Amino acid sequence: MSLAKQPLDFQHWTAAHLSRFETVLGELLPAASIAPQRLHAAMRYAVLDGGKRVRPLLAFAAAELFGADMARADIAAASVELIHAYSLVHDDMPCMDDDVLRRGKPTCHVQYDEATALLVGDSLQTLAFQLLAEHRLNDDAARQLDMLKLLAQASGSRGMAGGQAIDLASVGVALSLPELELMHIHKTGALIRAAIVLGAQCGNATPAQLAQLDHFGKCVGLAFQVVDDVLDTEADTATLGKTAGKDADHDKPTYVSLLGVKAAREMAQQLHQDALKSLDEFGAAAQRLRELADFIVLRKF
Amino acid sequence: MSLAKQPLDFQHWTAAHLSRFETVLGELLPAASIAPQRLHAAMRYAVLDGGKRVRPLLAFAAAELFGADMARADIAAASVELIHAYSLVHDDMPCMDDDVLRRGKPTCHVQYDEATALLVGDSLQTLAFQLLAEHRLNDDAARQLDMLKLLAQASGSRGMAGGQAIDLASVGVALSLPELELMHIHKTGALIRAAIVLGAQCGNATPAQLAQLDHFGKCVGLAFQVVDDVLDTEADTATLGKTAGKDADHDKPTYVSLLGVKAAREMAQQLHQDALKSLDEFGAAAQRLRELADFIVLRKF
Repeated sequence: MSLAKQPLDFQHWTAAHLSRFETVLGELLPAASIAPQRLHAAMRYAVLDGGKRVRPLLAFAAAELFGADMARADIAAASVELIHAYSLVHDDMPCMDDDVLRRGKPTCHVQYDEATALLVGDSLQTLAFQLLAEHRLNDDAARQLDMLKLLAQASGSRGMAGGQAIDLASVGVALSLPELELMHIHKTGALIRAAIVLGAQCGNATPAQLAQLDHFGKCVGLAFQVVDDVLDTEADTATLGKTAGKDADHDKPTYVSLLGVKAAREMAQQLHQDALKSLDEFGAAAQRLRELADFIVLRKF
Repeated sequence: MSLAKQPLDFQHWTAAHLSRFETVLGELLPAASIAPQRLHAAMRYAVLDGGKRVRPLLAFAAAELFGADMARADIAAASVELIHAYSLVHDDMPCMDDDVLRRGKPTCHVQYDEATALLVGDSLQTLAFQLLAEHRLNDDAARQLDMLKLLAQASGSRGMAGGQAIDLASVGVALSLPELELMHIHKTGALIRAAIVLGAQCGNATPAQLAQLDHFGKCVGLAFQVVDDVLDTEADTATLGKTAGKDADHDKPTYVSLLGVKAAREMAQQLHQDALKSLDEFGAAAQRLRELADFIVLRKF
């Protein structure tokens, strides 16, 4: 992770969490030696050793803010990351975005085959919900059911998958800015918000605090997407680890195509400020969330 | 449902449950008027007005045996049926079985498109877990988490999806009878067992009783598959509502290709007897489960 502009302390914090989390993910995923071996190997290929892990880091920062047990936060973060990974595997398939490169490696259906990639996505989604059901994340089991419900709502047809469907329908269509925002609030935003709220729910956050964090998540989620669109225009494939310029190639509406690069950058800055403002009441304790908001807006990949 | 050989009382019982359940499913699925409309319409297309609903009926029979609230059993049955429906939508896709007919209608990717079918399957799976999280199915929330875990285990890479992966790997391969059985125990059996156990868990079943019902489910699940293989050989496409003879065409091992029709029929009879025997201790109260076992073995489609 390139964090050149970030404070050294944040770099260490990030590195420590990601190192531990990668080990946890490796243990939570079925071993490649367990039958069906090829499916399990492909699931591990799709999840491990890749990605910025933005959602898990947001979950960890929110969990720390409310004094959560990090072993619980690891499970919440893993469930969100598995949903994210499943969506990437399916989105890359030929019938969707038909992409061959992801996280600097061949996409799952290229490395294995389409049928396996389909089952990998299906099985990663199942595993995400299994983790939230089989590990105790909250002393109150009824609250844990609420956490499961939150992840399902964020992922399903009125969340992430719904955003994907709106995206499909928008190819070659002139979306308005509110329509584009609606798509991204579903497609990317819902899961980013869920990561933050689930992390906080591993600790002792009040409903009012969860609502405040949810607003923070909404802002950084949108900022994440605006920056993605700018990078898709400006960065090259090697830096991104995925195919650059593909949205324009696919005639998909983006913040850049609607606003131009300059106004898109300004929009990201505004969302950045809104996100930081929503953390004011948490004081210095929310420093990690602030640094993550900085990273999301300042990142180069 | 053709139940000519079944007692009239059972026909009425089945009709009443299926009529109520169809209404419940229609209410649990997002309305086609809610955005994204095309995705929601396709989800409804894939689930409603079709299928034998064997898993829900098994769940209802098990729920009745333990005095469960039928509103709770409806949710458990719906979650299982949504998992089943998602697996059919994905299995029918070109990269898997590439089938054009299901339940007498064009398959989802034929009626809509491949990308929509992919998202339909993804979203139906999510909705299955959402239902189990947002409706109260057991007074004890911790037990409800166990129910969620059970459904996830039955559906994932070491359950149904894993059976699908073994199936993929078995095309053109000479499987032994134990290997074929292992595949089907995962691919079809796991979810049938889950339907029965989840139905019973909506009521007051003891762990020993759940284990007994799980054994019943294992027997009828395998019998279901053996009968499926026989029907795939003997029945025609119009009767089945799906493409007949496709397993042989795809060079997939089946009970018929391994044993011949006669021995496969005898195996189904033996599993039928084993299933009935596992219900002995429940006495007359388990009559519906017996009748469903009869239906599964005697069915013509």
